Amino acid sequence: MGQKVVIIGGVAAGPKVAGKLRRLDPEAEIVILEKGKFLSYAGCGLPYYISGDIEKQQELMESPLGVMRDPEFFRKSKRVQVYNRTEALRIDRTRQEVEARNLESGEILVFPYDKLVLATGAKVAVPPVKAIDLNQPETELRCLDLSHVYTLHGVEDAEAIRWSIREKLARRAVIIGGGLIGLEMTESLVKSGLEVTILEMLPEILPILDEDMGILVRRYCQEKGVNIRVGEKVERLEGEEGRVKRVVTDRGSYEADLVIIATGFRPDSDLARRAGLEIGETEGIKVDLFLRTSDPNIYAAGDCVEIENLVSGSPSYMPMGSLANKQGRVVAINLAGGTETFRGALNSAIFKLFDYTIARTGFGIRQAQTQGYEVEYALVPASDRAHYFPGAKRVVTKLVADKRSGKLLGGQVIGPGEVSKTIYALATALNYGARVEDLSNLDVPYAPPYASAIDNICVAGNVLRNKLEGKMVGISPQEVEKKRKRGEDFVLLDVRTPKEYQTARIPGSTLIPLGSLPQNLDQLPRDKEIVLFCAVSLRGYEASLILRAAGFEQVLVMDGGIACWPYDLEK
Amino acid sequence: MGQKVVIIGGVAAGPKVAGKLRRLDPEAEIVILEKGKFLSYAGCGLPYYISGDIEKQQELMESPLGVMRDPEFFRKSKRVQVYNRTEALRIDRTRQEVEARNLESGEILVFPYDKLVLATGAKVAVPPVKAIDLNQPETELRCLDLSHVYTLHGVEDAEAIRWSIREKLARRAVIIGGGLIGLEMTESLVKSGLEVTILEMLPEILPILDEDMGILVRRYCQEKGVNIRVGEKVERLEGEEGRVKRVVTDRGSYEADLVIIATGFRPDSDLARRAGLEIGETEGIKVDLFLRTSDPNIYAAGDCVEIENLVSGSPSYMPMGSLANKQGRVVAINLAGGTETFRGALNSAIFKLFDYTIARTGFGIRQAQTQGYEVEYALVPASDRAHYFPGAKRVVTKLVADKRSGKLLGGQVIGPGEVSKTIYALATALNYGARVEDLSNLDVPYAPPYASAIDNICVAGNVLRNKLEGKMVGISPQEVEKKRKRGEDFVLLDVRTPKEYQTARIPGSTLIPLGSLPQNLDQLPRDKEIVLFCAVSLRGYEASLILRAAGFEQVLVMDGGIACWPYDLEK
Repeated sequence: MGQKVVIIGGVAAGPKVAGKLRRLDPEAEIVILEKGKFLSYAGCGLPYYISGDIEKQQELMESPLGVMRDPEFFRKSKRVQVYNRTEALRIDRTRQEVEARNLESGEILVFPYDKLVLATGAKVAVPPVKAIDLNQPETELRCLDLSHVYTLHGVEDAEAIRWSIREKLARRAVIIGGGLIGLEMTESLVKSGLEVTILEMLPEILPILDEDMGILVRRYCQEKGVNIRVGEKVERLEGEEGRVKRVVTDRGSYEADLVIIATGFRPDSDLARRAGLEIGETEGIKVDLFLRTSDPNIYAAGDCVEIENLVSGSPSYMPMGSLANKQGRVVAINLAGGTETFRGALNSAIFKLFDYTIARTGFGIRQAQTQGYEVEYALVPASDRAHYFPGAKRVVTKLVADKRSGKLLGGQVIGPGEVSKTIYALATALNYGARVEDLSNLDVPYAPPYASAIDNICVAGNVLRNKLEGKMVGISPQEVEKKRKRGEDFVLLDVRTPKEYQTARIPGSTLIPLGSLPQNLDQLPRDKEIVLFCAVSLRGYEASLILRAAGFEQVLVMDGGIACWPYDLEK
Repeated sequence: MGQKVVIIGGVAAGPKVAGKLRRLDPEAEIVILEKGKFLSYAGCGLPYYISGDIEKQQELMESPLGVMRDPEFFRKSKRVQVYNRTEALRIDRTRQEVEARNLESGEILVFPYDKLVLATGAKVAVPPVKAIDLNQPETELRCLDLSHVYTLHGVEDAEAIRWSIREKLARRAVIIGGGLIGLEMTESLVKSGLEVTILEMLPEILPILDEDMGILVRRYCQEKGVNIRVGEKVERLEGEEGRVKRVVTDRGSYEADLVIIATGFRPDSDLARRAGLEIGETEGIKVDLFLRTSDPNIYAAGDCVEIENLVSGSPSYMPMGSLANKQGRVVAINLAGGTETFRGALNSAIFKLFDYTIARTGFGIRQAQTQGYEVEYALVPASDRAHYFPGAKRVVTKLVADKRSGKLLGGQVIGPGEVSKTIYALATALNYGARVEDLSNLDVPYAPPYASAIDNICVAGNVLRNKLEGKMVGISPQEVEKKRKRGEDFVLLDVRTPKEYQTARIPGSTLIPLGSLPQNLDQLPRDKEIVLFCAVSLRGYEASLILRAAGFEQVLVMDGGIACWPYDLEK
């Protein structure tokens, strides 16, 4: 008989361990315990199931060949015993046993193991929001007690939300939380014909991006008719006859017949904690390079573990399906006697929002500062292919670096254009500890339908180098807007052409086209800050070189130019 | 007065040097000498101008803001003096002068320099093909002497070809050379309604790819109605009344009223050679890390230089617009007193062919072998996004590695799906000297509309690792076909389902579905080679593990499965 391997968790990492281990170790006795009904489904596809982009639930559970990955499949094809609707209750590390309960029959089962794998996943971080049923105001409820209030944690949730929409029981949705999942759900619900309001407690949506990028996404989303409220805290949900009716915040009240709570995930490490395994500062299960927990007979993988951020080496929590699958593979190899390592990851993420793609990798400014880096950045709007090629679309690339070392810390790319290529290159560069200067001559391939002759990633690297080398001093549109609002005395100088200026301009800006700047230097004060910009701030940069060469000292260039200006323009 | 900088060449690297230098050095006197009429145009966009995808010639010469980059623009906006239609004849390195001739007036001009930049570009490698005019059979002609025979070297060529098409003077085109330019032109001409024949002397088209990838592209192109003849050498062109009528090869004759010679480029280093500058083994001008030639006052950039292949460190010739632009930037910085380096490049390339994207970076098998590497590779067909996501399309990823060191040497990606992301990541990985094992856990971002949970690049890396570690022994479809044709006695075992087998199968293959393989081992001979495959050879690999565990010794897996089988299937 082979080794007894028990896997707790049957969604992503768990089935991956089972499948790969079966290939490597034909003798192993493999058991999966899964609390839910469904196995091995593509959780990241749920928003697209709700929107109807993916028609059938089964598609999320089928292999590329159309084989349904249900318990029967695992038993027959993989010789893996699956117990679904079975919750692991306790790990006895001395006896090497897992005690579990069948959630339908209530029966208690005991599974002995030689090796145990924890793939217990994440749990939704439901905020402590109270709910009240106006018909029974005296009863204290929690938000999920009202009907038509959902998280998006599994197939069952998706099924219920889709059903509500199909049955026309929902018309107005409120999404609590403007993060990645909240925005994926926004697209899904808008496509389904619902009116959507997003309520975000933080000052800007999408904390996975920096605020200057988040605000661009918010403006885009608002143009699509989505009501987004930032800096607004949900205080309670109100319902009638058990069903949600509105969401009340510290600043307003929003009618809703569907509420989705998308306030993030936390590692589901309770079982591990109770078993005395080491838990990290992120609440994820601590694992070594081989994904072994503090007990050498117990491995862990997926959304329940803490991993290393490869940029900084610091402990991180990155609940991503891709990492879960990769970790599952590593665990299986090690269970089969191998020595495969998982060094960590970069917190890379990508998602679709209507016609935008939004992606990030490594650190944003805030996260980098928290890690003690002194941050510089570049914000570069550009075409995703040769500007003259039909179909060229805009993308905004942001790079973040450490001022002291010139090390690249992260990247963010958003826009209607092709985003993947840039974020793939950036993630790969970060994987090797890239310095910003490495990007200047990176030989990514070029042809007009796919890129500009000097790729955006190289251009962004060059802009950032200019800033790191002190050749250019930047100021964000947000800071410029604050100055304007405070009524500060500074020159906001547009160096575009008169024609461009006429079409749309920033309120309070002055025009001196780049070409005539050298002859008009005497129009500019030497004792005030001069903030230069153009369409994308390339001419703005050129102008700053001219001013600096002429002895002007307080010369700033507005990051990203008009393309990254997220406030109203005069027309 | 500032330094006198003379730049010979005004297409890509030259204008880039001029523009960037002007920003860095407001005092420099900058002169560009350009043989042609046009300046600073997007040469790589010419095929799209011919097809009409790009309507106006000017679009190729305009800045992203719609400003025409003509001599006037350079003079006014950049204070750069441009002499077009002016050919540099001689460099006098002692006197630091360039002698040039105005091609219109015949006037000889002399340009003194402090620093000289050679950006003389490439010349078309016109093969020594004879031509004959049937009306004047005694006159010896070269192929370009007949009318309607073109290279694609500049705006004038593109203009003439486009004109021929518009005026309906061309109906049948023959393209001599099945390389990148030849295929870009193929799309362009097919879109313009022409019948196209490609004549390639080598055994397969697209020498920038390996043959197993080239043949897939050829089959695709043939399905699009393009006549492609490989291994066929052009012997002569025949014309009537000065105009081309047909192309005669060693194996046939092809009617043609338009012939395009696309047999590659060579560095135009004649001027440098005559000036006694060091020339490399690729005929490109030798430059150091700072892009300085053997004369410290002379720099060189673009298609005329020899650069280092970053994978092997060997001298290479890579005539690419992207590299020319990047090198132009480096030269400008160094002219302005900086110390910017250009380490080399990866021979990365990408192009569009109807609905296919074709890309490569680093070494293919042949090139790697020439460099002395012992090569292993993986060929992995897969979906470009989650297989269940609407719009998912096929791509084939090929990785090449050094067997001894496990170092990644190159990658190729083709297909109708999204190719850029993978090739960007591969090029970046090569830039850092990646090992194949680095790819397994590379944290490229995942969401169903963009990728699979385990990205293709990771999967391809894992397949290659299996081969490098001896867990899997591959055989290419080409070798299998040769075995079949030679009538060798081996088992070609399809492990797909009966349903898949019924739909389409390789002639001579036997079916034992993976699921029933363990029970049917006695049907297989132990003394013969068994070649396993499935749709993509993942199940094929699983089957090979089963056979090897059962003691079978001659077990091979066919690379890429049916998806990479380029020959006819039985249906």
